[in-house]
Amino acid sequence: MTRKRVAVLGSTGSIGRQALDVIERHPERFEVVGLAAGRNVVLLGEQAARHRQAVVTSAEDGPAGLMRVATQTGADVVLAATDGAVAFEAVFAAVDRGTDVALANKELIVAAGRLLVEHAARSGARLLPVDSEHSAIFQCLQGSTRDQVAAIVLTASGGPFWTRTREEMADATVADALAHPTWSMGVKNTIDSATMMNKGLEVIEAAQLFGIPGERVQVLVHRTSVAHGFVVFTDGNVLGQLAAPDMRLPIGYALAYPDRLADRPFEDALAAIGGERGAPGTTLAFERPDLERFPSLALAYEALRRGGTAPAVVSAANEVAVAAFVAGALRFGEIAPCIETALGRVDTRDLSLEAVRAADRSAREAARAFVDARAARSVRSS
Amino acid sequence: MTRKRVAVLGSTGSIGRQALDVIERHPERFEVVGLAAGRNVVLLGEQAARHRQAVVTSAEDGPAGLMRVATQTGADVVLAATDGAVAFEAVFAAVDRGTDVALANKELIVAAGRLLVEHAARSGARLLPVDSEHSAIFQCLQGSTRDQVAAIVLTASGGPFWTRTREEMADATVADALAHPTWSMGVKNTIDSATMMNKGLEVIEAAQLFGIPGERVQVLVHRTSVAHGFVVFTDGNVLGQLAAPDMRLPIGYALAYPDRLADRPFEDALAAIGGERGAPGTTLAFERPDLERFPSLALAYEALRRGGTAPAVVSAANEVAVAAFVAGALRFGEIAPCIETALGRVDTRDLSLEAVRAADRSAREAARAFVDARAARSVRSS
Repeated sequence: MTRKRVAVLGSTGSIGRQALDVIERHPERFEVVGLAAGRNVVLLGEQAARHRQAVVTSAEDGPAGLMRVATQTGADVVLAATDGAVAFEAVFAAVDRGTDVALANKELIVAAGRLLVEHAARSGARLLPVDSEHSAIFQCLQGSTRDQVAAIVLTASGGPFWTRTREEMADATVADALAHPTWSMGVKNTIDSATMMNKGLEVIEAAQLFGIPGERVQVLVHRTSVAHGFVVFTDGNVLGQLAAPDMRLPIGYALAYPDRLADRPFEDALAAIGGERGAPGTTLAFERPDLERFPSLALAYEALRRGGTAPAVVSAANEVAVAAFVAGALRFGEIAPCIETALGRVDTRDLSLEAVRAADRSAREAARAFVDARAARSVRSS
Repeated sequence: MTRKRVAVLGSTGSIGRQALDVIERHPERFEVVGLAAGRNVVLLGEQAARHRQAVVTSAEDGPAGLMRVATQTGADVVLAATDGAVAFEAVFAAVDRGTDVALANKELIVAAGRLLVEHAARSGARLLPVDSEHSAIFQCLQGSTRDQVAAIVLTASGGPFWTRTREEMADATVADALAHPTWSMGVKNTIDSATMMNKGLEVIEAAQLFGIPGERVQVLVHRTSVAHGFVVFTDGNVLGQLAAPDMRLPIGYALAYPDRLADRPFEDALAAIGGERGAPGTTLAFERPDLERFPSLALAYEALRRGGTAPAVVSAANEVAVAAFVAGALRFGEIAPCIETALGRVDTRDLSLEAVRAADRSAREAARAFVDARAARSVRSS
């Protein structure tokens, strides 16, 4: 078989490292033609030594390096696994050249997902989701057409505060929020899990990637993270995807697409649904979330209704609010009001890469102003 | 859109009636061009009055009538929903002409499934499963290739004796066995559910229809019948299908394939997984069956290992054994030994329609001999 040429943007991050793990287990299938990372030049050097044919770039080389790895390496697929907005232009350039992109850059899909889908439709590039929930939906959609889809469902762990009342959450501490049940992840993602904004952002991503209106992207809380997503078809049939909570599965699916790797014994997957033979078996439980208790999730739906750059505003304001909460400058219960305030203050009507960057800046300013006002009030009241 | 021309073999049976219900709800999509039934000529007459353009045949017209409806009505799809072996030749003739067949005739798929798949591969006809479990697998397989499939999983209700020991089952009564938890069905099917031979026959059907070795067709007991089947892929991903236990869903899927009907609000399907909004939610539980307690299921796997006409032998011997049990001539615990005896006595090596018919006859003779021997022994010992 011809080896797939892969360029990895963000090779030293968690997704980048796991992608290289998958790639290195399948040397017959994949070849690394580009590696781009930020400031972790030691690890990048090790990766470059293992993939001597790859073009390598770090933050020192600036945006031109990222652009070169994304567009000048002859890649069949670019894995977009950088954080934030640093790789937006490089990914758009790859898509415009018709190169498939495996999408792990959440800010990109949230802020510019609809734009990216438009560019991909024009160039013929395929957008391959890497997030486990979106990979689940993408897998369930194979072989069907858009007009057959009635709704999609993303599962959510519910996070550490799933059983708390809104009042109990209002003054939750950072330590409380960092106790996450299933996935191991960074501070920002774990706070997002506590507010359920992680799921809100995924709802935005799904609506934009799959072209489904927000009100038909539903969330079900499923605390054991075995099922990752469902597609409800217009004829009443539902398809769902289940897998071990291991990011290498959706990464491998995206990189090998439309093939599938052949590296997991079926008994392992079966154990996830049916338990070990002779054991009591497995139970999968699903519950609907309460948008009153998780107002951040409601704000994500509101951003989808507004369209334009509203998703970018929600994402950026949330970043500022979470950082302020972690720094002790905002109460947990003030995260959603901070985002809501930003959403009310920023003009979100246009949609272009420039408009996204401008909305991001304005949203951060509005969110910081909200945080500062709260801090000033706290000082006065203490 | 062009209307699909449907010929219904077995129009007065349960599947036939539900199919006509689906068809009549979608007059813009379907047109009935043929109706074939057995002795229920009153209902057949009513159906014919509603579908005046259809060619109509009953048991009085003999095999030629079935053949005519299957092959001389210009049908785009033939629904094979007769019981037993009466329509085998007509269905093979339709397949050989390249006509798609929606398969609800279990004996046909069990006894001649592999042969039918060979004929369909030659003619280009599509075989569309109607059974809910096989429809589930078929839906999960869309967009993937055979070599990506590691295993398939059929769910089972477990039947009325799921929690009983083998000793408790040995002398179970007919009344015990007729208390089935989820689906409402006839006496034969309900006894098959108690022995789990219903699932054994479905394992045989799935292995033959989808070309998967028996040891990779697994069964999970799932007593609430929300999930109907799973496909485990070689990369560790699992797709599953869920739907309300309503046969009109898989019937509609098979008839509309590759389209999907658009007649079910997504909230109904969502309620099946996530419960009503604000309600406590839904739980799906899965357990592996114990082949020691359900030896009929083990015999189905044995039939797949033997191949040839062994599936036909198991199906025919099971019919005789169940009838004998219902008539009081066999103990519940003797059903599996009766089938096993027949499987040991019949030459199962060849596979052709003639060999299937011969194996069916020999299996019934061997099973009846087993029943008679038990009856004679009971008389001696009483």
